[in-house]
Amino acid sequence: MRVLGGSAAGSMGRAIAGLLGVEYSAIELKKFPDGEFAAKVPFNAYGEDIVVVQSTYAPQDRHIMELLFIADALKEMKVKSIKAVIPYLAYMRQNKSFTEGESVNAKIVMRMLGQSGIDAIMTVQPHKTDPLSAFKGRAVAISPVRTLIEAAAKNLKDPYVLAPDRGGLELAKSAAAILGCGYTHVDKERDQITGAAHIRNVPSERFDGKQVIIVDDVISTGGTIALSSHFAYSRGAESVIAAAVHLVMSDDAHHRMSEEGVRKIYGTNTIPCENAELVDISKDIAEGITRL
Amino acid sequence: MRVLGGSAAGSMGRAIAGLLGVEYSAIELKKFPDGEFAAKVPFNAYGEDIVVVQSTYAPQDRHIMELLFIADALKEMKVKSIKAVIPYLAYMRQNKSFTEGESVNAKIVMRMLGQSGIDAIMTVQPHKTDPLSAFKGRAVAISPVRTLIEAAAKNLKDPYVLAPDRGGLELAKSAAAILGCGYTHVDKERDQITGAAHIRNVPSERFDGKQVIIVDDVISTGGTIALSSHFAYSRGAESVIAAAVHLVMSDDAHHRMSEEGVRKIYGTNTIPCENAELVDISKDIAEGITRL
Repeated sequence: MRVLGGSAAGSMGRAIAGLLGVEYSAIELKKFPDGEFAAKVPFNAYGEDIVVVQSTYAPQDRHIMELLFIADALKEMKVKSIKAVIPYLAYMRQNKSFTEGESVNAKIVMRMLGQSGIDAIMTVQPHKTDPLSAFKGRAVAISPVRTLIEAAAKNLKDPYVLAPDRGGLELAKSAAAILGCGYTHVDKERDQITGAAHIRNVPSERFDGKQVIIVDDVISTGGTIALSSHFAYSRGAESVIAAAVHLVMSDDAHHRMSEEGVRKIYGTNTIPCENAELVDISKDIAEGITRL
Repeated sequence: MRVLGGSAAGSMGRAIAGLLGVEYSAIELKKFPDGEFAAKVPFNAYGEDIVVVQSTYAPQDRHIMELLFIADALKEMKVKSIKAVIPYLAYMRQNKSFTEGESVNAKIVMRMLGQSGIDAIMTVQPHKTDPLSAFKGRAVAISPVRTLIEAAAKNLKDPYVLAPDRGGLELAKSAAAILGCGYTHVDKERDQITGAAHIRNVPSERFDGKQVIIVDDVISTGGTIALSSHFAYSRGAESVIAAAVHLVMSDDAHHRMSEEGVRKIYGTNTIPCENAELVDISKDIAEGITRL
């Protein structure tokens, strides 16, 4: 077995290889002046089991295409198997037609990956797991919630977990179980056209003296987290931090949250991010690979 | 039949619909703050024959992905058939592993398109036509060389066609036949690693008093055209212009060519381009569609 890192593997590729005790190589990209590129495997991969590590954060299409090119280059070399570790899997939120006539991106991406020569996929906490079934091989998701939450809550004396919407309740429940504390959720209503969110139903709990951790799978604009933070302080929270697996952090998310009193943001290294504390989950991934 | 234009259809989508006498619509793109997007068909396409027009110039991966999303959205609506017009088809130059371990991008792109629900493809003058066979349906290429060359040479009294490499000889021959003039080619040697080109073998012809047209399928950096122009003047050419189907024009190609005396650059509207005279080939495409 060998680990091959794509351009969006970050430091995780080498870390995973180290944990698995196998050799690591980075893909070579042959770049053309017109913006096109090709992937080149820098070693003889014939007959080998290859683990490719490639995240698919922005530019998503480029990173997905690179993964397809890497898989093809490996197939051309007649490898024995290809396992793809995709720490952040793009387009999983568009998992159905929300209005008539819309593409179902999650299905398309999984189908493309299935036809690329990749035998198995491991990803981290996708927004929904159903799209994974559109991949023709084995596709599994791991949850690094313990690693994330233990790091985020290590200095909190009396934590309380808040999910920013009903969809996040399962994750909040897991986080609360790890910390041995209470949890609840606010209800978010999102306009499918504008994407604007507001809080609709609010729970009756008060958070007096507690350090609230808002837990989510992904932080995108941070709007929902900001709303939840505002709510937590209105119910007596002593402090608010946010912890999410994937920090997409678009549109100045960091400021939007800090303005509503979110004191610190924790995430994992599935996506590079400044202004946040990133927890390394290479160990969770390496353990997942041995079971894949 | 209806024509549906993608974001890279330019003015060609509407023009083609007009020539075919059918309705035109532009795809709606639902854009998310993190850079992801989804395609939305803005009319009920159930049971219809749809011609999708989408070029795939830079950002190539984005434009290819959009085409796949459009095809999926149409399939979700249960259209009768999807024909894709891809005026500029990206990645066709990487049609084999040039060195060990390289991805074969042209094959991958054609395979992806084949699995998207697109029934037939029409493109314009691809660098090589063999990759088209990796598409599972009917895939045809049209050549707009007559439209291009007639426009480019309309004011030339004594034209002479020059191909900038041996691979361009067929196109040069067609162009010369249209103009009823002579043609020849220079020989280019390209380093597969650095991409640098230089002229190796030169023909014996002189071009005294002639207006040389350098004809090629694509102008990328313009380096080869510049070399050819320099050569043409060294053999007595009165003037030099360049005509290519696709003007990729990367890395300041325009200046590189004008510095070597290329007085005007002609191309087609498969790719938007400033600093060049673009010939509209919507009619060639509309005619091709009726035969697809």
